[in-house]
This record gives sequence, C-alpha cells and structure tokens, in this order.
Amino acid sequence: MRSALIVGTGAIGTSIALALRAGGVVTHLRDTDADAARTAEKVGAGTTAAPAGPVDVAVLAVPPAAVATALVALQREGAAGCYTDVAGVKALPEREIEALGCDPTSVVGGHPLVGNPRPGPLAANPDLFDGHPWALVPTERTANRSLNIALELVSLCGATPVLLDAERHDRAMALVSHVPHLISALLAGRLRDTEASALRLAGQELRDVTRGAAACPEVWADLLSANAATVADVLETLAEDALGAAAVLRARGAQGADPLLDLLRKGAQGQTTVPGKYGVPAASLATVEVVVSDDAKEYAQLFGDVADAGVSLHDVAVERSAHRGTARVSLTVSVANEPVLVSRLRLLNRPVRSR
Amino acid sequence: MRSALIVGTGAIGTSIALALRAGGVVTHLRDTDADAARTAEKVGAGTTAAPAGPVDVAVLAVPPAAVATALVALQREGAAGCYTDVAGVKALPEREIEALGCDPTSVVGGHPLVGNPRPGPLAANPDLFDGHPWALVPTERTANRSLNIALELVSLCGATPVLLDAERHDRAMALVSHVPHLISALLAGRLRDTEASALRLAGQELRDVTRGAAACPEVWADLLSANAATVADVLETLAEDALGAAAVLRARGAQGADPLLDLLRKGAQGQTTVPGKYGVPAASLATVEVVVSDDAKEYAQLFGDVADAGVSLHDVAVERSAHRGTARVSLTVSVANEPVLVSRLRLLNRPVRSR
Repeated sequence: MRSALIVGTGAIGTSIALALRAGGVVTHLRDTDADAARTAEKVGAGTTAAPAGPVDVAVLAVPPAAVATALVALQREGAAGCYTDVAGVKALPEREIEALGCDPTSVVGGHPLVGNPRPGPLAANPDLFDGHPWALVPTERTANRSLNIALELVSLCGATPVLLDAERHDRAMALVSHVPHLISALLAGRLRDTEASALRLAGQELRDVTRGAAACPEVWADLLSANAATVADVLETLAEDALGAAAVLRARGAQGADPLLDLLRKGAQGQTTVPGKYGVPAASLATVEVVVSDDAKEYAQLFGDVADAGVSLHDVAVERSAHRGTARVSLTVSVANEPVLVSRLRLLNRPVRSR
Repeated sequence: MRSALIVGTGAIGTSIALALRAGGVVTHLRDTDADAARTAEKVGAGTTAAPAGPVDVAVLAVPPAAVATALVALQREGAAGCYTDVAGVKALPEREIEALGCDPTSVVGGHPLVGNPRPGPLAANPDLFDGHPWALVPTERTANRSLNIALELVSLCGATPVLLDAERHDRAMALVSHVPHLISALLAGRLRDTEASALRLAGQELRDVTRGAAACPEVWADLLSANAATVADVLETLAEDALGAAAVLRARGAQGADPLLDLLRKGAQGQTTVPGKYGVPAASLATVEVVVSDDAKEYAQLFGDVADAGVSLHDVAVERSAHRGTARVSLTVSVANEPVLVSRLRLLNRPVRSR
C-alpha cells in the first residue's frame, strides 16, 4: 500500500492517517469541514491536496448513515482501488451500498474497536488502534485483492483483524456495546431527579455502570439508529430479564433467595468471559498493593523500586486517603512477575499486600 | 469511647476493629465461626476474650437478615451501651428490631459505603472507610447519647457520616447500587451463551458495565432480598424505560433520532451528577497524558519528574501498546496543578497531552 485517501478527518480518520504515514503511506485528507481537514494536515496526518490519480485505498471515516452515498461518489470519481469504512454498524451501509448499485468487489466494510475517543482531529494519535480488534466484514462479492488491502491497513494501524459477516457484527455490537450503552444512559438519566443525599451514597459501582453515558449523545444516536431493530431486540430481552428479576424479588421478598442467587451466579459466570484490558486474560494478571505517603516523592521512590525489580507494569491505580495522608497504590503485573515484585518490595521493607 | 464489641469478624467487622484499635479503643471480637474470630485476633484487631462488663458500643457486622436476632441477644446480655450495625439495607432490620421489642433508645442503624471488599478478616484494613460516606439512620426514639457514640465510631474510622431515615436510605441504595448491580448481573449473564467472536469485539464499556457482576452472589442475594420491594420498584421503572427506548428505536429505525437523542442527552446530564472517586467532584480534576517506553525504568523516571514538579497525584492509569513498546500514562491531578505539571514535563521535553 502506497497511497490512501482519508475521507472524514475526525479523531478516527486522522488517527488512521497518522498510523499510515508512520508506515510510509502517502495520505490525502478530505473533509466537508475544511477546517477539520486543515487541522489534520497541521498535526502531520497528510496533505489536503487531492491525489493525482486513484489511491490504493479510500477510508470513509464518516457517520454510519453517510457511508453509502460517500462511497457512490468516490467510486464515480474512480478515487481508489479499494474502499473501506469505520462505521460502528455494518449491515445498514452494506444494504445501502448494494441498493445504490456500487461495485461490490472493491468494498470491505470495517470497524476499528477503540471505544469513544474524544472527537476531532486534535484528539487523533497514531497508536489509537494498537492491539485493539478491528472487524472486517467482506461480502461474497468482495475481491480478495480488496480484502488484502484492508488487512494491510489494519496491520499498519497495529490492530488485530476479526473477520465476520455484517449481521453477526451488528448482533455482537448490540450485545457488547449498544445495549450496555443505552442501559448506562437510562440509569444515569434516572439520577437527574435524585436528591443530593441519595447521590452521596453512590460509589464505584454506579461510577462504572454510568461512565459510558457521558459519551457524545449525537454520535450514539446515529449509531443506535443505524442498528435500531437489532438493538431493540436485545433491549427487549434485557427488559424481560429485569421484569423477571423484579417478579422474583416480589415473590420471595426477604424469605429466601434461590432463583435470585441463580441469576447472580449466572452474572458472575458471564462476567468472567469479558476480555480484560489490552485483550490480556484477567486471570494472567495479578495485583500488588503498596501503601505510601501521599507525596509525589514517595510515588517516585516506589516506581524506582519497581524499576529495580525489573518488572513491567500492566496497570496502576491509586486510592488516596485524605484522612491519613497516605495512598494505596495497586500495581498490576503478570502472574509470573508477581512473586518477583512482592519479594523485592518486602526486601525494601515496604508493606505489601498481594491479591 | 473506650471499648467495643465487634460481632462478626469478616472484612468489614475486622476493619472497624482495626480502625478503633488504632484510635486507642479496646476491642473484643466475636464470631459464630471461631476460626474467623481467631484470625481477626491474629491480625491485631483485638481480643477474642469476652469483655468483663458492658462495652461502650457493640457493632453487628452480620448479614442484614441476622441483625435483629443478634441485637435482641446482645441487649439481653446487657452487652453494650449502644448498638449499631453495618448492613447495606436499613428498613428491614429496623422493622424487625421493633417487632422483637428491643430497647430502641440504644440502637442506631449504620451502613459504611465501601463497595465490595474481598471477604474475610484477612482482607481487613484500618483505612477501608477512609473518606467514604457512612450512613446512619437514627429513629425518633434513638437517644442522643447513642447517636453521639455512633458518630464517634464513624469518625474513628475516618468516614463521613450521612444522616437520613431508613426508607430514604433503602430507596437511594436501590437506585445507586442494588439496581445497577442487578442490571450488571443480567447483562453479564446474557454473555454466557455468546459466541467467542462476538466477545472479541467487547471493549471498555462492557468491562465497566459488567465489572460489578463478579461480586459474591451469596452476599448480594441476601442484600437484594432484604430490600426486595424497593429494588423491584426501581427495576420495573428501568425495564419500562428500556421498553420505551426499544419502541423509539423500532419507530424511527434509521430515519431519525430525536427522542433517542433526548434520552441519551438525559443520560449524559445524569452522569455528571455521579460523585467522582474520593468524593472529589470530577470537574476539579484534570488528566495529563504522557507517552513513555514500556519499561520499568521509564516509569520510575516519569514519576521522578512528577515528584520534581511537586504535584500530588489523584490517579494514574496506564495503557500499554504491545505493538510499539510504549505506554500512555494518564496522570490525574487537580485542575490547579495541571499547568504546573504540563509546563514542567514540557521543560523536560516530554511529549504531553492535556485533556
């Protein structure tokens, strides 16, 4: 792959352009918002000058409902040898592309899974996709040549391709992303008329469950609308589950808890199937807790000690204790490195707890 | 307060005992599981020897459904001048205590809000409650003397008292904790029959929404059963919200998104009312991102630089990039300290992004 046209220079499009440039690809930038394209150019994502002839790949980083019409226009231009997009739903653009009579051989739908980056080209970074899955949904009519270019694009972005069909992709996204997001928004929405003393009792669980609701409503409305029927199916199933749980609670009250226990056990089992951060299975990681004085120098000393142990960190969390002037630092390391770190820190007389 | 009896030496009871001991209180430990009491004694939480006479306060750290009967027995013994508990629901024990004819003047229901610590006395630590809210639900018949002892207990544990009545407490907990937990469990339960390729597309949002489902099913079944009717009310409201959202999706499909947008905007508004970690308003914190090589020495150097800036950390997050051998470290600091940290790191030629 030598050249690419990025249509839509938001955070995703500009990040792809930056990753391709780092891989030696010549990137051309286009956006209906000329300011956004110029900003992307300024951060080094490529040139806003039009390509001299067809590029190897055109990447449509536009909202789901805009993919098909943008694709038709690009194919009429003869803009590229292969076309892909980054929309979070795949069946709708695929249907629209077919209905508009595009050439299907050069099209491979795509979806990099990177959560909700902040919007706009200034939020772009070339390692945004690094180690993340990137769904590709070739149809029967996609040419192998096109699929290979899409795979090269994914590889240049440092992501891991996951091949599946569009319907399966959309059902999966409804379950693992769209419905969790809606539930998060519905729960958070209910907090608006909650009194302050109730909210003072809120803790980590509410923070976790409602965190997603902060994401851009406009982007999510587009996404959910484009996967409406599938999301509605999953949402109705979940609502039935919730009504079932309410009935169990009303029937048993404080008398007993067997069907309820069963429901909670199924949840605990299901939770273990969720892949961990960085795609690393949660079971291969261990956490070591160290209490230090809540002071920048103490943190520096602790991380110096970790460095001396020669151990690589997977994550760090800090829980400060204003009352005591201390902080509990949780160091996540591989299970293999845990004893190394613990024995090193104990040698240095640090109070350590492993969990 | 000079003496206390801790009944139930799980993680919460033992942590209270440790905090009281650190404050100079003589603590006596009791548990129906003699091993648990002895373990708590071994970690320095107090003595398993029975007190010679009535203690100042008895803390019942037993499951919600066991509070009232334990309280009756203790009052018959004349064990203490004041009685409190730590159950996550408050109306049920209050009703049962009244029905059993206990002396109400010496009773103050309590609930320290500390999330889901790991179970057992070995998971105890004296700063578990530090800076966390601790609900107290005195009735009209609670003597001031008893309330003051409970307030002293909360203070010795480093927590912040929140006074409210039992019904209000239970409605608040249904909304901010019990229903979010059930929804988390229901969603996670649905993942059990999901194919592996769908789960590969799961990201941070699913991790956040389902994290709570991993907590001990038995503990949660007890808790939910003890607040059954209130939880069922809130759960039914949420199920109606979900069915309403599904209807909106079915009606509009890909055609438009106004009521959907409204729903998502309400969620984004509600999310801003959730208190941040450490009870600090999220708006008073800023995050500074720094990219370093994924190497223990590089982390140490970075935290050394932060120490030189004299800036206190509220949180740290790490996102590793296996592909590039780098890690993006997010440093959360107060809004006031953000420019200090950014300018210091830029002086040291570190690539910094502020958000």
